Amino acid sequence: MDKVDVVKRYLPAALPTPTASAEAFAPSNIALCKYWGKRDKALNLPINASLSVSLGELGTRTRLTPISAATDEISLNGKAVALSDDFAKKIVEFVDLFRGPGGARLKVDTHNSIPTAAGLASSASGFAALAKAVDQLYGFGFSPQLLSAFARMGSGSASRSIFEGFVEWQMGVREDGMDSHAVPLQQSWPGFRIGLLTLTEAIKPVGSRAGMQRTLETAHLYQSWPLQASADLEKLKQAIDQQNFEALGQTAEQNALSMHATMIASWPPLLYWQPESVATMQRIWELRQTGVPVYFTMDAGPNIKLLFESKNQPEIEATFPQVKVVSPFDGVS
Amino acid sequence: MDKVDVVKRYLPAALPTPTASAEAFAPSNIALCKYWGKRDKALNLPINASLSVSLGELGTRTRLTPISAATDEISLNGKAVALSDDFAKKIVEFVDLFRGPGGARLKVDTHNSIPTAAGLASSASGFAALAKAVDQLYGFGFSPQLLSAFARMGSGSASRSIFEGFVEWQMGVREDGMDSHAVPLQQSWPGFRIGLLTLTEAIKPVGSRAGMQRTLETAHLYQSWPLQASADLEKLKQAIDQQNFEALGQTAEQNALSMHATMIASWPPLLYWQPESVATMQRIWELRQTGVPVYFTMDAGPNIKLLFESKNQPEIEATFPQVKVVSPFDGVS
Repeated sequence: MDKVDVVKRYLPAALPTPTASAEAFAPSNIALCKYWGKRDKALNLPINASLSVSLGELGTRTRLTPISAATDEISLNGKAVALSDDFAKKIVEFVDLFRGPGGARLKVDTHNSIPTAAGLASSASGFAALAKAVDQLYGFGFSPQLLSAFARMGSGSASRSIFEGFVEWQMGVREDGMDSHAVPLQQSWPGFRIGLLTLTEAIKPVGSRAGMQRTLETAHLYQSWPLQASADLEKLKQAIDQQNFEALGQTAEQNALSMHATMIASWPPLLYWQPESVATMQRIWELRQTGVPVYFTMDAGPNIKLLFESKNQPEIEATFPQVKVVSPFDGVS
Repeated sequence: MDKVDVVKRYLPAALPTPTASAEAFAPSNIALCKYWGKRDKALNLPINASLSVSLGELGTRTRLTPISAATDEISLNGKAVALSDDFAKKIVEFVDLFRGPGGARLKVDTHNSIPTAAGLASSASGFAALAKAVDQLYGFGFSPQLLSAFARMGSGSASRSIFEGFVEWQMGVREDGMDSHAVPLQQSWPGFRIGLLTLTEAIKPVGSRAGMQRTLETAHLYQSWPLQASADLEKLKQAIDQQNFEALGQTAEQNALSMHATMIASWPPLLYWQPESVATMQRIWELRQTGVPVYFTMDAGPNIKLLFESKNQPEIEATFPQVKVVSPFDGVS
């Protein structure tokens, strides 16, 4: 199905003309059960449900301002981006879903408080913030779940960045994908910590979109991935409910490694790890051997995200002095 | 089924008393389609068929000498090994299958021309040489296929080290496993080269036996492994038949990485790679990008085995000065 046709059904007959600007923030999110593989490439419908935790104030702030001009003006972190750039093209394509190709031009200012393409999903917070800002600009008043489904059309994991805290992206069954959106879990976990380790800021050689597709088409082992993911999702929900940190950590780490395993088993091989990634994993396992409950997750990149509880923060910082610690539930109601 | 009962059926009623000593050599082998997972732990019956290439003169030479003593005397590379050592225990257990626990004691001298436990399967050539030497010592006159089935009881991949060149280990279907033995492929490939890169000689933290078992029990992705292996086996046989080096290299590399992927997806994670393993893979992929057909395989350890043809040896040696090049078909009829 085509995105344009799906979105059209939710729009008013006449598009309101925006007069004021609109601004919205959405947090980045880190998946504990990963999204890897699409059953529909046009709509970003996933092969498996996923579960993430949002990163509080780390994310994307997007401001939309109506302008009298022939073309949109796109900027990222204060710098103008050419309309021929992939980043700009994706934004214009997304905005066009709502205003149509003939709608009034906009100035789109995007500010990320996380390094772009360094293994933190800036496209997730980016499309979530953009969807929220578009909703405000035109005064649609979409529900959060509808915003989540729309954000998903920009980038799959953006569906989860509409919400804070623990978030489940339900895979849905409908052909138009409108039941494939995120829902926030009710549980809070004040002592839950994420430690960001940026081992390299190099842009990854193969993006997630192409990487997923290659895995799906060439890795025999991928056939068992949906089974793994659905088992892990249930385990994670139970661990969150019981605040059982070790169960959560084990499940998240095995889930991430299993996703990387399906990439490694692809052809040509997809290895997002750098030598330093392996060295860091070994240090984590050694620290765990000494009795510190620390686990990790990784996305389609070389960087590592530590999972631990606040009570172990001193040991974590002693072993990884460069770690940036995020408290996902600070300021989350 | 018990090994003792299976072997007994092939032994003469009265064991001949050995008078002279016996000596045999068996080559190490490197699997292009890996053996990973057992359907029967006692008999080392595999879940999938595998295919290897033997390493010519790199392997194990074993000499058996009857002695008048209360216990066997075991040595490895000229050094005495205590009978309480795992290495010695496995040898005695294997010899006992044929002479019975009460048979005459032996001096067992084992010489490996490859580094023990450095990622080259010394247990494969070891049990193959031992099976051949036992056959000679007692004058059984077992067929090579029977020797292969017996060697398999010592170490699964030893079944392949009975033969030279390309070797297939057929998985078999019988409960007693006697149809699970290797057969040599007829094809020779004089220009085929293997480049051994010893990145570390460290003993691996988890042996293959325990590693396989952990993968089988904890990795969801392992469910797809037999499918991968059987597809790869057919591709490899076709590539060997057509002397299609790129097809062989691609299949062997994907097979090895898929096996490692099942380990990585286990719990606790089984990562045999060191940072240097990843760095070496990256160098191989870069070299391949420049048009040199070089591929690799890896076993349950951090070291890497390059696969290439003799015409590309100069480029390989320029990139990897420390490589030890093996010509598997030199001197193989």
